[in-house]
Amino acid sequence: MIPVKGYAAQSPETDLAPWDFQRREVGPHDVQFDILYCGVCHSDLHQIKNDWFPGIFPMVPGHEIVGRVVKVGDHVKNFKVGDLAGTGCLVDSCMHCENCAQDLEQYCLEGNTQTYNGMERDGSSPTYGGYSTSIVVKEHFVLKISDKLDLAATAPLLCAGITTWSPLKHWGVGKGHKLAVLGLGGLGHMGVKFGVALGAEVTVLSTSPKKEEDAKKLGAHHFVVTTDAEQVKAAHGTFDFILDTVSAPHDFNMYLGLLRTNGVMMCVGVPPEPAQVAAFSLLGGRKSLAGSGIGGIKETQEMLDFCAENGIVSDIEMINIQDITPAYERMVKGDVRYRFVIDIASLK
Amino acid sequence: MIPVKGYAAQSPETDLAPWDFQRREVGPHDVQFDILYCGVCHSDLHQIKNDWFPGIFPMVPGHEIVGRVVKVGDHVKNFKVGDLAGTGCLVDSCMHCENCAQDLEQYCLEGNTQTYNGMERDGSSPTYGGYSTSIVVKEHFVLKISDKLDLAATAPLLCAGITTWSPLKHWGVGKGHKLAVLGLGGLGHMGVKFGVALGAEVTVLSTSPKKEEDAKKLGAHHFVVTTDAEQVKAAHGTFDFILDTVSAPHDFNMYLGLLRTNGVMMCVGVPPEPAQVAAFSLLGGRKSLAGSGIGGIKETQEMLDFCAENGIVSDIEMINIQDITPAYERMVKGDVRYRFVIDIASLK
Repeated sequence: MIPVKGYAAQSPETDLAPWDFQRREVGPHDVQFDILYCGVCHSDLHQIKNDWFPGIFPMVPGHEIVGRVVKVGDHVKNFKVGDLAGTGCLVDSCMHCENCAQDLEQYCLEGNTQTYNGMERDGSSPTYGGYSTSIVVKEHFVLKISDKLDLAATAPLLCAGITTWSPLKHWGVGKGHKLAVLGLGGLGHMGVKFGVALGAEVTVLSTSPKKEEDAKKLGAHHFVVTTDAEQVKAAHGTFDFILDTVSAPHDFNMYLGLLRTNGVMMCVGVPPEPAQVAAFSLLGGRKSLAGSGIGGIKETQEMLDFCAENGIVSDIEMINIQDITPAYERMVKGDVRYRFVIDIASLK
Repeated sequence: MIPVKGYAAQSPETDLAPWDFQRREVGPHDVQFDILYCGVCHSDLHQIKNDWFPGIFPMVPGHEIVGRVVKVGDHVKNFKVGDLAGTGCLVDSCMHCENCAQDLEQYCLEGNTQTYNGMERDGSSPTYGGYSTSIVVKEHFVLKISDKLDLAATAPLLCAGITTWSPLKHWGVGKGHKLAVLGLGGLGHMGVKFGVALGAEVTVLSTSPKKEEDAKKLGAHHFVVTTDAEQVKAAHGTFDFILDTVSAPHDFNMYLGLLRTNGVMMCVGVPPEPAQVAAFSLLGGRKSLAGSGIGGIKETQEMLDFCAENGIVSDIEMINIQDITPAYERMVKGDVRYRFVIDIASLK
C-alpha cells in the first residue's frame, strides 16, 4: 500500500483536518500521480455535510485533480513517469454497459465510481479524493493535461469545466445561438468562456449588478440583472439556450420565459428544493428543461484539448490546504473569483 | 352577418345552454362550413370554468370541428362548396413572425387566435367555437378532411390528435424506440395509436389496471400499473420517451426515473399545480422534461393525411348537444372511451 497525506472530514459535524491514509498499490492498468493542485468544488462541501445523501467517512474530498505521474502499471499505454495527468469526478465505471460503451461513463448503468465518497467496484473500498498528496487511478479515467496551460488553473476544468462543456456540446450550442448563462460562479464563469469560444452570443443572467464588469471581462456580450423587471421583460423570449448553473432555489418559470420557441434550459446545478415548473411554461413554445451531469472521459479529454488550443483555463484563487474552512465559508457566500484551488505543496 | 345557433356558457357559474349569435360575412380569404360534428375536449370545461385564465363570455366552446363547406371567398384556392373541412384550436395568427413563417402558428409570437375564448386579430371581436351550426374561418386555418374516414371520429384529431402527433414527430419517435404513454384518455389513446403507427414499442402507464385490455386493443404492446411498485421498478430506466397526457397532479420524478439516458418526457397535459422536479431526476441520465402545445396547420394536415392513409381515427361516443353537461361530468371522471363527439344535427 502507498502512504498518502490528506485532509479529511471525519464526520459531517467536523471541519476538515489532516488525515493520513493509504492508496492501493499501482496495478497493471493503473497510473499513480502526485497531486500538485486540486480545485475546490461546492459539491465538496455538500458531500461533507451530507446535504445530498449519507456520505462515507472519513471523507477526503476533491475531484479537480492535476499532478505529475510517478508510476505506471505494466499495461499502461498512454502515460509515462513525468507526464502531467488529471482526474475529475470519476475513477471507474462498469466499462461494459451501453452507456459506458458510448463513452458516457458518467451515466454508467451500474453506477459510476466517484473519485471520493464512493466505493471501488469491489463495493467495499472507499474512494478518497484530491485533497491529498498522491492518487492511483485506472488509466482509462486519467486525463492528459497540456503543459501549455497554467497547471493550477487547469484543475477546475476537470469538474467545473466538463460540467458546463458537456451540455453545450450535447445540445450543439454555437454560432448563431443566443446563450444565457445563469449564475456567475465556478461553473458559470466556465460556461461563459466556453459559450464565447464556441461562437455563441453570450448573456450573463445574475442577481448581482456588481458582476457585470467581470462578466464582460470573461467575454460575455450582454448582462441582465434578474432582479430588474424591465431588463427581464426585455429579455423575454430571446435565448435559444440557458445554461443554469445555480444551486440555490430560483424561479424556473421566469427563466423559461426568457427562452425562444424550442429553447432548452440546461440545468447543471443542484438546488436543494425541487424546481416548480408550470405546465404552460413548457407548452407555450415547446421548451425543455434538461439536466446534464459532468461528462464522459472522452469528452473530458476533448474539452481539455480544446482548452489547450484556445488558451482557456479557470479563473482561480490559490489557497493552502490549511485555509480550506475559511475558503468554504467564502465559497458559500459566492465570494470567490471563480474557483479556489489548493496548492497541494502546502500539504506535504 | 350570418346567424348561427350555438350552445354557450354565459358565465363560469352557468351550464351551457342554447345561444344564438352571428358569424362574420365570408371574406375573400374565408371558408364557411356547416358544422356536422364537434369533439368535446377537457379544455372546453377548463375554459368555461376559468380554470386557467379569465374567459370571454358568452363562451361557445369547441375546437375539434368538422363539417361541409357551404361558401368560399373569391380568393379561396383549396376549398369549394361541398368539400369536407375541419378546424382545430386555431383560426388565425399574425402570419408573419418567425414562428408563423416556419409553420408554427401555434407558437405565433404575437399570440395565435384561439378558435373560441379568443379575440380576432382586431383585438375586439370574440371568437366562438364549434358547439354551433356553422363557422367562418380564414382558409389558411381550414384543414382538408378525407372522406375515407368516419367523419365524427375524425373530429377529435383536430385537437387530441395533433396535440399527441406533434411531439411524437418533433422528437422523432419511431422504430427502435420504446415509448410510454402516460394516461389513457382522449389524448393518451391517440398517443398509443400514433406511437404504434410510427413503429415505436408502446407501453401504456396507467393507475387503473382495468384499462389494460383497452390499451392492448388500441395497439399498445405493454401495460404498466403505476400504483404497483414492482411493475414500476421493472420499468425503471427503460423508455426513450414518455408522452405525458395527464392533467391531474402526478409524480414527475417517478416517471423521469422510467426514462433511459437522454430520455425525454413530453408533456401535453396541464396539471393544476406546477410539476415538482428534483435536480437529480434530470441530471442523472441527461433527461429532459419538455412541453408541446397542439400543432401548426401544416403538420395538422400531415397528421390528417397520415390518418387517412393509415385508417386512424379517435374512439368516440356520440352525444346530442343537449347532453353536454352530463357528458362533462362523465369526462371529469374519466368515464369516456375516449372522446365525446357532439352530433351537431341535434342543434339544428
